[in-house]
Amino acid sequence: MIFSTININKDKPIYLQIKQHIIDGIKKGELKKDSKLPSTREVSKLLKISRNSVISAYEELESDGIIISKRGIGTFIAIENEAKCFPYNINYSSMTNDYSNNLKNLDIIKTELPNKKDFISFKSIAPESDLFNLDDFKRALLDAWTYENTNLLNYGYAKGYKPLIDYFLDYMIKKRVNIKNKDILITNGFTEAFDIIISSLTNKGDTIICEKPTHNTAIKIMKSYGLNVVQVDMDKDGLNLIELEKKLDKYNPKFGYLIPSYNNPTGIVTKSERRKGIYNLFKKFSVPIIEDGFNEELLYSSSPVEPIASLAGEGNGIIYIGSLSKILFPGLRIGWIFADEKLIDVLESVKRGKNIHSSFLDQSAFYYYLKNGSFSKYLKNVRKYYKDKYNLVVEMINKYIPYEYITGEGGLHIFVKLKNNINSRELLNLCYKDGVVFMPGDIFYEDNIDNNTFRIGFGRVNEKDIKNGIKIIGKNIKILSNKANVPKYKL
Amino acid sequence: MIFSTININKDKPIYLQIKQHIIDGIKKGELKKDSKLPSTREVSKLLKISRNSVISAYEELESDGIIISKRGIGTFIAIENEAKCFPYNINYSSMTNDYSNNLKNLDIIKTELPNKKDFISFKSIAPESDLFNLDDFKRALLDAWTYENTNLLNYGYAKGYKPLIDYFLDYMIKKRVNIKNKDILITNGFTEAFDIIISSLTNKGDTIICEKPTHNTAIKIMKSYGLNVVQVDMDKDGLNLIELEKKLDKYNPKFGYLIPSYNNPTGIVTKSERRKGIYNLFKKFSVPIIEDGFNEELLYSSSPVEPIASLAGEGNGIIYIGSLSKILFPGLRIGWIFADEKLIDVLESVKRGKNIHSSFLDQSAFYYYLKNGSFSKYLKNVRKYYKDKYNLVVEMINKYIPYEYITGEGGLHIFVKLKNNINSRELLNLCYKDGVVFMPGDIFYEDNIDNNTFRIGFGRVNEKDIKNGIKIIGKNIKILSNKANVPKYKL
Repeated sequence: MIFSTININKDKPIYLQIKQHIIDGIKKGELKKDSKLPSTREVSKLLKISRNSVISAYEELESDGIIISKRGIGTFIAIENEAKCFPYNINYSSMTNDYSNNLKNLDIIKTELPNKKDFISFKSIAPESDLFNLDDFKRALLDAWTYENTNLLNYGYAKGYKPLIDYFLDYMIKKRVNIKNKDILITNGFTEAFDIIISSLTNKGDTIICEKPTHNTAIKIMKSYGLNVVQVDMDKDGLNLIELEKKLDKYNPKFGYLIPSYNNPTGIVTKSERRKGIYNLFKKFSVPIIEDGFNEELLYSSSPVEPIASLAGEGNGIIYIGSLSKILFPGLRIGWIFADEKLIDVLESVKRGKNIHSSFLDQSAFYYYLKNGSFSKYLKNVRKYYKDKYNLVVEMINKYIPYEYITGEGGLHIFVKLKNNINSRELLNLCYKDGVVFMPGDIFYEDNIDNNTFRIGFGRVNEKDIKNGIKIIGKNIKILSNKANVPKYKL
Repeated sequence: MIFSTININKDKPIYLQIKQHIIDGIKKGELKKDSKLPSTREVSKLLKISRNSVISAYEELESDGIIISKRGIGTFIAIENEAKCFPYNINYSSMTNDYSNNLKNLDIIKTELPNKKDFISFKSIAPESDLFNLDDFKRALLDAWTYENTNLLNYGYAKGYKPLIDYFLDYMIKKRVNIKNKDILITNGFTEAFDIIISSLTNKGDTIICEKPTHNTAIKIMKSYGLNVVQVDMDKDGLNLIELEKKLDKYNPKFGYLIPSYNNPTGIVTKSERRKGIYNLFKKFSVPIIEDGFNEELLYSSSPVEPIASLAGEGNGIIYIGSLSKILFPGLRIGWIFADEKLIDVLESVKRGKNIHSSFLDQSAFYYYLKNGSFSKYLKNVRKYYKDKYNLVVEMINKYIPYEYITGEGGLHIFVKLKNNINSRELLNLCYKDGVVFMPGDIFYEDNIDNNTFRIGFGRVNEKDIKNGIKIIGKNIKILSNKANVPKYKL
């Protein structure tokens, strides 16, 4: 019987597997034209699957003209065996290059312990979906549709949706950045912006100077292109200027990559005076800075600080990457590169070569959302909400976690350096058994050398889980501390 | 006076330039706190710009707290000079690498004659926006919103929107392709799909075999990565098998890249028997094929042909790139890679490294559009519409253009090889003066060697313009023929 040879894979839609099996049977000659298929009831019983899956498969096969069901008689194969198959196999794993191997090996979604249902997860720094003002977004979406409709559906422009570009230019002016001889390229979020810059302007072996620790996705991208990542220590005010100068001098770097407004993972906000110091050092060595405006908008425990780009005047030394979508609709994937206009002209061609352009529907909806004032309204709400959560997290950490220091002036995450040389990976393994996960700190260091830090992302964790989760982490730290205190050899 | 030093750039929003100029004035110390600004009327008169632009600039500056207007008295600077600027300049054009230089130099949007308003343009092979069934799409968009809302706005998955992946898997089954041990990655259209494959699986100097001529974007991407592009001649049934075998043997290529269902630019549909021959040769040399399913759906002058992927059975030799959005909503940028599931797992990490994932809003709206049956309905309409246009184009070409041959069995374009060695670039220059443009054929050859061909894309050209445009091309061919026939030296 045809279904005695099928192996159902639980991860894929069952009705598709049934369909595929019948088509294969025809191709292999096992099912000739006019031969009768078992009834849906029989198949469902035999394979212990829902009858609806079998019915769906049969219905679609019938609408494709592959089988025919005759009322009261049964279901029959309607076509002849046509296409013969001549399989051959390629060993693709031997074909992957350094770039794809790096991206695979550094893909934390695959290498880190997976999140599970009902886990308390401090891994993500994504925003809380429940705070999205959905009615406002729907209105923006309908506005976009009303004003643009077909324009959104046919080819757009690689540079981006013009009204959104103009909006972001104005946004830069508001941040006191000089836009003369500058331009903007819209990208699929920060990640694409950074990938476009790095893939266009660096060569294997080039050095990039960045903060220590820094955004793991940036490290991943730099390493995927074979770059040399040099990290510079930070204190609570930002990069260490003495070390920065030494390394600028020693390594002759191609770029600096900085997250001054909300370092990921530490949450350190580089102070205004320090920004000037950093800027002047890069200027001294004529090294351009890629400034990541990460969550600039979210600062709530310190007064707003202007981006480093505001120091450049009409100079072109800073390439600024903006991305409102880190706190607002990450699913839409909208970011931008603000830089020298001749450079943007090149990057526009690169963007076109990579994927023609970003979704115009998203860009237009996003534009109307901003234009309608919904973003400012949203920010007001979320600042208060996240500040309360932040305070709770700090309170709980003070209560349960023995740390050397914690950093983070708000935002959606806090970085913890553990006392007593507690290993954060060992801690994670213990917590995982209790259903609690966080982001171990080593992924934010190019050499993965740091073993005693971790990041707590709390954007999507509710109060109760914050309390329980941090308690559990504390409990496991105790277990590890006790172990460490047991003398290794009994006297 | 502050505005005597401004140079208005007509290409950028004027109100933004006014804003920028005032902020610069403050930074430079030219505008001190409490100093009075000229009235909007004065500025508009002085700079010969619309007063509304000046009003917008002043309004925004006031809402940013930078200026203050006192009723009946005037407008004043409200803030102190704060951030000093220390410009430095980088020569980015010396930093671009081979990849970005190639993408810039091969960017036909920049290198080809620009289209102008009121031109008759046969350059594009994009579909006619007027045919988009907008009500159906709006319904799909609202369905997506209703069923998913917040899910679309927070982070999604690099592989894509699950219901859409399942839909495309089923779509492959309908094309008689075996999906066992295969999987799908959703991409930003064909371009990203091809870029992901090439950037992941090739190294500089590798050879790829493809049709002659072939899709210029594919040539651009292959060259941007420093690949060796080897083209194989076609006849009206597809690739020349003898030449293909020779070149497979000689070049030891990494991949074949084929557009069997609707070669771009020739519109040749590779016949069923020839597909088997091609497949068997690649199999013989164990070379995988990247099959571009370009406009498969649009075939209307021949019976449907199954993709080469349908010949592979459970083998993994074919990597299939699908993209319904070539004829349907190119603005949404949705395509997919169907391939060996272990390979898709690697490519998923690459996609995540390039831009995390494609827009979930687009993917979901597209899914509901397909699920609601709107795509089939749309296809029925457009086939008839494009077939009529196609017939008109062929009729006009037969009447006015002396060709050696024309190819294209429908679709949205036709390829013309001119008689008498008429140079298609010279022809384009003449036609340009008459307001008619088309795509010169040389861009579809890796060595740009072909000088006597061009592509006529007619998807978005109306009947009247088709008639006039082809007449004008014909007229200019006559001019060039006459020139060529004038003896070079008078006797």
